[in-house]
Amino acid sequence: MFLTAVRRSSNVLKSFKPLYDRVLVERVAAETKTKGGIMLPEKSQGKVLEATVVSAGTGLRNEKGELVALTVKPGDRVLLPEYGGTKVIVEDKEYSIFRESDLLGVFH
Amino acid sequence: MFLTAVRRSSNVLKSFKPLYDRVLVERVAAETKTKGGIMLPEKSQGKVLEATVVSAGTGLRNEKGELVALTVKPGDRVLLPEYGGTKVIVEDKEYSIFRESDLLGVFH
Amino acid sequence: MFLTAVRRSSNVLKSFKPLYDRVLVERVAAETKTKGGIMLPEKSQGKVLEATVVSAGTGLRNEKGELVALTVKPGDRVLLPEYGGTKVIVEDKEYSIFRESDLLGVFH
Amino acid sequence: MFLTAVRRSSNVLKSFKPLYDRVLVERVAAETKTKGGIMLPEKSQGKVLEATVVSAGTGLRNEKGELVALTVKPGDRVLLPEYGGTKVIVEDKEYSIFRESDLLGVFH
Amino acid sequence: MFLTAVRRSSNVLKSFKPLYDRVLVERVAAETKTKGGIMLPEKSQGKVLEATVVSAGTGLRNEKGELVALTVKPGDRVLLPEYGGTKVIVEDKEYSIFRESDLLGVFH
Amino acid sequence: MFLTAVRRSSNVLKSFKPLYDRVLVERVAAETKTKGGIMLPEKSQGKVLEATVVSAGTGLRNEKGELVALTVKPGDRVLLPEYGGTKVIVEDKEYSIFRESDLLGVFH
Amino acid sequence: MFLTAVRRSSNVLKSFKPLYDRVLVERVAAETKTKGGIMLPEKSQGKVLEATVVSAGTGLRNEKGELVALTVKPGDRVLLPEYGGTKVIVEDKEYSIFRESDLLGVFH
Repeated sequence: MFLTAVRRSSNVLKSFKPLYDRVLVERVAAETKTKGGIMLPEKSQGKVLEATVVSAGTGLRNEKGELVALTVKPGDRVLLPEYGGTKVIVEDKEYSIFRESDLLGVFH
Repeated sequence: MFLTAVRRSSNVLKSFKPLYDRVLVERVAAETKTKGGIMLPEKSQGKVLEATVVSAGTGLRNEKGELVALTVKPGDRVLLPEYGGTKVIVEDKEYSIFRESDLLGVFH
Repeated sequence: MFLTAVRRSSNVLKSFKPLYDRVLVERVAAETKTKGGIMLPEKSQGKVLEATVVSAGTGLRNEKGELVALTVKPGDRVLLPEYGGTKVIVEDKEYSIFRESDLLGVFH
Repeated sequence: MFLTAVRRSSNVLKSFKPLYDRVLVERVAAETKTKGGIMLPEKSQGKVLEATVVSAGTGLRNEKGELVALTVKPGDRVLLPEYGGTKVIVEDKEYSIFRESDLLGVFH
Repeated sequence: MFLTAVRRSSNVLKSFKPLYDRVLVERVAAETKTKGGIMLPEKSQGKVLEATVVSAGTGLRNEKGELVALTVKPGDRVLLPEYGGTKVIVEDKEYSIFRESDLLGVFH
Repeated sequence: MFLTAVRRSSNVLKSFKPLYDRVLVERVAAETKTKGGIMLPEKSQGKVLEATVVSAGTGLRNEKGELVALTVKPGDRVLLPEYGGTKVIVEDKEYSIFRESDLLGVFH
Repeated sequence: MFLTAVRRSSNVLKSFKPLYDRVLVERVAAETKTKGGIMLPEKSQGKVLEATVVSAGTGLRNEKGELVALTVKPGDRVLLPEYGGTKVIVEDKEYSIFRESDLLGVFH
């Protein structure tokens, strides 16, 4: 799914690198079917808190000024906090930027 | 009890790893019987503050950027603070994510 | 007095270990007699600020991530601040959890 | 585009060096055409969040008092946060000053 | 004056040791005579800001977790800030507990 | 311009040294002519944000307690933030004191 | 002027040593004459922001717990911030206590 996402995105997005501990993510599309296969109206789907990391920063500096790499990397499936993050719109598609320390966890 | 909990949970949950000092916990079911065995209505049971650690992060970074392991580990029974934490719902079951420093203690 | 307190408490309490710099204390029962031996009504007894340490955490981590032991230990008689702490009820008995840095002092 | 921008700016601007972790940027002009080439009224263009770095500070000091260089450099195309920054007007042209840690990312 | 104060105080007080950077002080009694020897009503005496240190903590921990001794010691006459501190009543006598960093100075 | 400014200022000002990271600046007089040479009423001139450094402190201490020199020095032309700073009046002339970290940049 | 001030002050003041980074200062008396020698009513004199250091603390501790000496010393003429500081009255004379980091500068 990640590769598809990147392929669909513009050159602008491909060349984008978040600064320091920031991570650019794309929310996973909300499933519109129940397990039994019945389509659900948009309203009942709630807010999607899963996202795919599109691009990750180089990490924060430690006390010596050295960059400490982030834990997440492009392609990781992450769990987002319910609030926060900065919405970014590239070619009519919505992305979000979070600080890595605000992400709740990773699905391996 | 812990193993049962994981077995009941989905593959998605099994693959989930909280980031840094976060801990995913599952609240212990409130007992609905008095010691004498009389069933109590839900209302009188109060808020359950005991939980089982399902998954724990890799720890916070120290000043050199090294990861310092957490104290709690999966299977630990912990005491939660009355407020705080982030509710997460996986396959219709509710979990919570806390920072380890917000947990009050561990039952060994 | 401390030993009695623990003996009266449940197995659950015996196995409880506060995390990091937290300390589990049991407030000393308010004396209901004047020095002259006259029983006083509850109201005039004020809030009890003395407590016995039941269980102490392993200490906070220093900048290297090493645990620095706490000063107080189980059995210590401590002076509590007037406000703060988290009430915990185990087998119908009330305990409190404080961070050690919020305790005012120790009676040796 | 960057070179043009500097050429149009005054000598005053050329000689300006932000202090420490500050970065002087010039917002990219909002495009007033749709992809299909139809001119859009100003209102529908939103706030431009892309900018070109005109001048970057020498970096912040680490714990030893040494300067740690910034990541962005003059000519970089950066993504600005929606709020914040200090507007600066030089020769009737508007620039903004941001701390580098407030910038969201760089387009390479 | 300090020795007298301790002698008057209970065994409980003698055994009390403030934690870390806390200091137990006893306010100096407000003088109720003018220099010329005329007794003044209580009201005109204001708040007494001088106090005698009864007991001092072991000091705060530095970044390595080592205890750094306090500057004031029992018997020191100190100047209190106008606000702050925690009132403590031992055997009907009032004491105050301050963090050493809140004390304004020492009279040698 | 800087030398003139000092010559006009009193001996008191010459002997003044800001403490630590503070910088004493004198705002550049607002130009009251347009480029075309037409005098403008005071109102249209806005707030002058350029200033000349008259005197700079010795710098802040790093974690070892050593002084780390400031970047700006007397004679530097600096860009002030729109708000902040402390107004100081010496011999009927107005100066401002800023922390160096609040200054936006330097004109070389 | 400084010596006179101390001579007029009591023994209590002579023996006073501010703690850590605190500095005891005495405000310079407001001049009640214009340069031309005309006496001015009190009201027009404003708040005096110049003061003489009477006594300075031993300095703050660095991260190792070592005391780092202050920059100002008794006898220094300093510029006070407009607000802040703690008023202290010794033998009917008013003094102020400031943290050294709140002082704006020194007149050499």
